[in-house]
Amino acid sequence: MALEKTLYIGPFIHCQDLTTLDICQNGMIGVDEDGKIAFISRSEEAQEVSKQDGWGDAKVVKIDGTGFFFPGFIDTHIHASQYPNAGIFGKSTLLDWLNTYTFPLESSFTDLDKAARIYNRIISRTLSNGTTTACYYATIHVPATNLLADLCLSKGQRAFVGRVCMDSALSPDYYRDESPLTSYHDALACIEHVKTIDPTFSLVSPIITPRFAPSCSKESLNLLGKLHAESHVPVQTHLCENEAEIQLVKDLFPDSKHYTDVYDSAGLLTSKTILAHCCHLSADERSLIKSKNAKISHCPASNAALTSGFAPIRKLLNEGLTVGLGTDVSGGYTPSILAECREALFTSRQLCISSGAGAVKREDDVKLSVEEALFLATRGGAKVVGLEDKIGGFEVGMDWDAQMVRLNLADDELSEDVGLVDIFGHESWDDRVNKWVYGGDDRNTVAVWVKGRLVHRRRGWRG
Amino acid sequence: MALEKTLYIGPFIHCQDLTTLDICQNGMIGVDEDGKIAFISRSEEAQEVSKQDGWGDAKVVKIDGTGFFFPGFIDTHIHASQYPNAGIFGKSTLLDWLNTYTFPLESSFTDLDKAARIYNRIISRTLSNGTTTACYYATIHVPATNLLADLCLSKGQRAFVGRVCMDSALSPDYYRDESPLTSYHDALACIEHVKTIDPTFSLVSPIITPRFAPSCSKESLNLLGKLHAESHVPVQTHLCENEAEIQLVKDLFPDSKHYTDVYDSAGLLTSKTILAHCCHLSADERSLIKSKNAKISHCPASNAALTSGFAPIRKLLNEGLTVGLGTDVSGGYTPSILAECREALFTSRQLCISSGAGAVKREDDVKLSVEEALFLATRGGAKVVGLEDKIGGFEVGMDWDAQMVRLNLADDELSEDVGLVDIFGHESWDDRVNKWVYGGDDRNTVAVWVKGRLVHRRRGWRG
Repeated sequence: MALEKTLYIGPFIHCQDLTTLDICQNGMIGVDEDGKIAFISRSEEAQEVSKQDGWGDAKVVKIDGTGFFFPGFIDTHIHASQYPNAGIFGKSTLLDWLNTYTFPLESSFTDLDKAARIYNRIISRTLSNGTTTACYYATIHVPATNLLADLCLSKGQRAFVGRVCMDSALSPDYYRDESPLTSYHDALACIEHVKTIDPTFSLVSPIITPRFAPSCSKESLNLLGKLHAESHVPVQTHLCENEAEIQLVKDLFPDSKHYTDVYDSAGLLTSKTILAHCCHLSADERSLIKSKNAKISHCPASNAALTSGFAPIRKLLNEGLTVGLGTDVSGGYTPSILAECREALFTSRQLCISSGAGAVKREDDVKLSVEEALFLATRGGAKVVGLEDKIGGFEVGMDWDAQMVRLNLADDELSEDVGLVDIFGHESWDDRVNKWVYGGDDRNTVAVWVKGRLVHRRRGWRG
Repeated sequence: MALEKTLYIGPFIHCQDLTTLDICQNGMIGVDEDGKIAFISRSEEAQEVSKQDGWGDAKVVKIDGTGFFFPGFIDTHIHASQYPNAGIFGKSTLLDWLNTYTFPLESSFTDLDKAARIYNRIISRTLSNGTTTACYYATIHVPATNLLADLCLSKGQRAFVGRVCMDSALSPDYYRDESPLTSYHDALACIEHVKTIDPTFSLVSPIITPRFAPSCSKESLNLLGKLHAESHVPVQTHLCENEAEIQLVKDLFPDSKHYTDVYDSAGLLTSKTILAHCCHLSADERSLIKSKNAKISHCPASNAALTSGFAPIRKLLNEGLTVGLGTDVSGGYTPSILAECREALFTSRQLCISSGAGAVKREDDVKLSVEEALFLATRGGAKVVGLEDKIGGFEVGMDWDAQMVRLNLADDELSEDVGLVDIFGHESWDDRVNKWVYGGDDRNTVAVWVKGRLVHRRRGWRG
């Protein structure tokens, strides 16, 4: 589908590096018919030159009022099938939560009408919250998983879609793969399906998804490792989420050096592997993950909700590990990566308090900054999914995966429809970004594009 | 202003006690011309009888679709003047945060136009988030503080309005009371003003507000204690927020047994005292607070943001202390008590993790439940402000301080205007409440009443 050449005019903001926002107040970004960034102008003068250079008749999308363009968010860990349970977890922790809330819901995805309703909804919700790329866990069902891939493609969301593999006796009778070979063949069937709808995985990619070590037999892990080696399709799974789970893995895999080694021994730990949670990695595990260049998805809302633990993000970053953010719906209550940024910021502060250094400055570097949270949500996530050359920032040659953010000027009449952020006029650009991160929601994301295609717009917004 | 007798028909939910929600699916609550609850029917049959009993021609307000009536929220600690800084705090902690962000903003409230803009906005924002009662800190300025009281009265929000007292040399030159007598007289002037606009403090009450011990001389604390004894006007202040502050108080008041004793010695610790934060109380201080029946405002968002500490809420509750919730804008980023419930729930879980018991069950009772968070937000807050006989629940004789909550059925067309909560139809009433608490925002609060008066409604809602 050919797109119109488009000029996006107005302030734009993206992450230059982990700690620095690049804020351009007079920006113009030219996006070509393939949805790629053709040029970037950073001043009004440069805009005039650019317009003369073959872009005079391009479509124009302009920021009205107080707002900016920002890269689309990347959700590196979300269970699409669990969305109806978002916010429902009581006082459970991981292992009882799975049995009480999660497996009963996931097992119902034999019903394709139900699957369609839920998958349509979660894709719309994540898009409307600015998520342009999502790494989805589906269920064990091939038809419903394929449906999720179809829906992502038709709604235009960049996605990794994983058929969940779980064959171990620890999985419930009513919801598990019959055998290791079932895990392998059904995973393969979903890969083959995506090849038929998006042969080059240009928008939607399959992803090999062993649920987590306790759900999988050694044999099935080995088969999935073989599939990974044969197909070059990426892998996603869970690692070191909570302490009871880690003990369980020790008991189930007595010959493995540690939890990370379970995946490594099966050939599942590579540069194309996304490991969710990683709250309790040993130094040896961190070093192994780094040597394999595997990636980490930080899911702070879920880790707090299920009291799984504090992932030591500062330490992981300092050691050179690659980290992105994941909402982990429905361990996490929110499908919004912006909300997840808040959770990451607060979790880093709670970890700082818990280390006994809250009131003094000496552990200030445990705290994440707003800039760092936004980096994890964009550039960091892009690295986690292996697309750092295509998405996560605004650079010439990258795809236009972006959102238009609008902030509201505080005036006399309150209208809830424009969101909770109030700009009084004294705020610097940094302040505005802070207000957006702490107070913003989907109402501030008025339009969303993936590969140059408009995939969401708020009612009343005209592109 | 006389009101119409009104029947509120539909499900209603309120807190029966700390751990139990009372959920009535076929409710009808009759509210008389004074805004008081005259009767409560809990079944359709009872409704028929009630209607025949002199309420046949009453106005009817009905829940349409999925929703319920819920008591209005009580914010027991919020700095109205700091609202423009909500979300702006960087990596600061309490004492540097005050000097960097807070004092410069507060000192500008000599400008009454600015004060009017900000106070109008925060009252509208809190009302639209379901806050029917707020304990406000204003600034040191008498005219602006009186304006805040006027605006609360005209907008119909129940409020405690405090002129901030701060005369110590630690306060900046550009923003402090000239002398202890200034603190006393200006506090008195604000009390006198409220007497002229609401003589019985039926909606708006003054509140004596020594900022916190480090901001006040011993002499001014004594004078404010005297004012409290003479006027019977309640008191609000801060206590044991972070460790550097506690050390500072030790240095400043070497003769005091501890921080709490500083207030007690000045006659400021009584059953009408609201103490914000209380993250680091000693056993002796907790016991003193209990013996005086003073009240605690828990502000988890602020405590996380400024890495102040974990207030041990379970311990405080177990020891019989009275606790409510406070947003503490702008130490806290949000003016929403619903969001503060989430922060309280997550903070209790982070404290659970930090105590090393995340993965196991043995410290499960550290975790707050959704029911408990809602109790703190309503009945608990009512006790904190001394109005437990009037507000915080639905009981005959209480005032109708309430909100109508609407939850959205997930269907094919996404409309952001109805909020983020998606109801799929399988949810129990408990599940719905959980979804509201974790996923809800001001869009779910479609109408708000104080003393029977409609003080907020969402665009499009017809009462």
